[in-house]
Amino acid sequence: MKILSGEIIESAAEPHLWIDAMEVALQALKDADYKTPDRMHVSMDANTLLIMPSVGPDLFSTKLVSVFPSNVKQPAIQGTLILNDGATGEALAVFNGAKITAMRTAAVACVGIRHLSDPMSQYLGIIGAGVQGQHLAWLATHERDLERIYFYDPSHQKVVEFMQFMHKHAPHIEVAPCEDEQQVITNSEIVCTATTSKLPVIPNLEDLLLGKTFISIGSYKPDMREVPESVYRLIDTVWIDSELAKLESGDLIHPIENEWIKPTQIKHLSTLIQQPNELGFRETRLFKSVGNGIFDLFAAKLVYQKAMEKKLGFDVAL
Amino acid sequence: MKILSGEIIESAAEPHLWIDAMEVALQALKDADYKTPDRMHVSMDANTLLIMPSVGPDLFSTKLVSVFPSNVKQPAIQGTLILNDGATGEALAVFNGAKITAMRTAAVACVGIRHLSDPMSQYLGIIGAGVQGQHLAWLATHERDLERIYFYDPSHQKVVEFMQFMHKHAPHIEVAPCEDEQQVITNSEIVCTATTSKLPVIPNLEDLLLGKTFISIGSYKPDMREVPESVYRLIDTVWIDSELAKLESGDLIHPIENEWIKPTQIKHLSTLIQQPNELGFRETRLFKSVGNGIFDLFAAKLVYQKAMEKKLGFDVAL
Repeated sequence: MKILSGEIIESAAEPHLWIDAMEVALQALKDADYKTPDRMHVSMDANTLLIMPSVGPDLFSTKLVSVFPSNVKQPAIQGTLILNDGATGEALAVFNGAKITAMRTAAVACVGIRHLSDPMSQYLGIIGAGVQGQHLAWLATHERDLERIYFYDPSHQKVVEFMQFMHKHAPHIEVAPCEDEQQVITNSEIVCTATTSKLPVIPNLEDLLLGKTFISIGSYKPDMREVPESVYRLIDTVWIDSELAKLESGDLIHPIENEWIKPTQIKHLSTLIQQPNELGFRETRLFKSVGNGIFDLFAAKLVYQKAMEKKLGFDVAL
Repeated sequence: MKILSGEIIESAAEPHLWIDAMEVALQALKDADYKTPDRMHVSMDANTLLIMPSVGPDLFSTKLVSVFPSNVKQPAIQGTLILNDGATGEALAVFNGAKITAMRTAAVACVGIRHLSDPMSQYLGIIGAGVQGQHLAWLATHERDLERIYFYDPSHQKVVEFMQFMHKHAPHIEVAPCEDEQQVITNSEIVCTATTSKLPVIPNLEDLLLGKTFISIGSYKPDMREVPESVYRLIDTVWIDSELAKLESGDLIHPIENEWIKPTQIKHLSTLIQQPNELGFRETRLFKSVGNGIFDLFAAKLVYQKAMEKKLGFDVAL
């Protein structure tokens, strides 16, 4: 059995392979050979254990994610992922689950960038500079030929961490910390939000937002929101990564309840991948990602295959 | 994070510590500080992934068990168990889940032997000499001062494996292969069944069965049975290890449907541990074990603590 650490997960496969793999995974969501049961929640007072299995024709994976919001010395979200052989059930590898989550979520967001944003985009904006914003910014530099990344986070520590992370992973890209969200949006063609906010982090100003591509990867619970009314007024369609998004994200529940959009305007991004003429005429676009266990399965498969090819990771006998 | 292999799990703690730990775990099932949600089944054609979380006040564990009945080169049942720190969610160790299962199931059976059988018993019988029967026979030698173990299995390969296993783990104990189940029972005071049979493996002969202690650890599904009507006619009480047994085991469902016993005659073994005078007057006794995630949690805790004390297992950074 292989032990695949965060460092190995980060470096085993090139960023464009991650994005390609997630593009395939998005389409596999509608393939009967793949099954992703509803995730299991185990509550422990204020803490939660999430258990996310996903089954494919050749492999299956189970991700265990612990969410401990009041952790001080350790990250609030930690995890482990086990990848098993679908022919025998044997455990093939144990992965750092937090790193798999960070990489696959960023790569799914980049599939949105690939299909929704202007291919000539040079300016990316990041609102929320935590682990998830960092990984998204890095992978996005492999999807668009970026000139500069504008970003905002209220935490000074996160600002410093974001700059260090980008210096390590994309040293050729200029990164510009901003004073607020509005400054990020003013300067960016693609705007990514990666926060745990309960109220929109994008100002509700139509003129500011017109023509931009929005990628929202926060708001994975009904009481969380990142995107304001104006965005919904400017778009044809909300593109989503998983049907669960309609039940889980405040950025879909709230706009439908308030009739900013009709349920028929919510479409799966895989539809667009297969039929690019579905894009519509409006130049303001929105991709809402909540994640799905199938992305973990494809991510683990990619890293495992590369680790086997390149002989990466500890081999242990269980 | 520690990697704890089957070999380490087998040797880290003395057998009597396993049995003591399971005696505590049985009683913790009624303690509000412990929570064991219903296990999750993920079906993959003829194969199954079982996900069994269990939460305690200081630690939580998740066991993943793959059941692939048509495996040839590999065992049908394989597994992985992750133990996490309850204060931070951090993954502390990855265990061989099949070995944890084999050891804890055997140790729970031995708690039944401890509380139900004559302390002077010298002759143990095993019907079903697979992995589970082997581990049970071994641990039982640490609970009773056995003179000889009689056993039966229709597979010659299993007979050989049983003898090799016992030669390795309990070389001072005589083991006697039998021609059939009846020969095992005739010679034994304590009779343990560890099969996947759909029909009783114990002959339905009251005179043969009178006064013996029966420990049934197969029959974990409604269509599985090991114990015949006569046993139920001879006992006061069916002692169980988990309330789930009433829903899961054909050895409880079938006898209740056929009115061989009343539901009020089914009692949890922890009751007997706390109140030994509950035992009743009849000398024929039955313990039916189906298992529970809480036993995995206590087993993992025991092995982890011993591995830390004795510096066993690989340490890997995830």
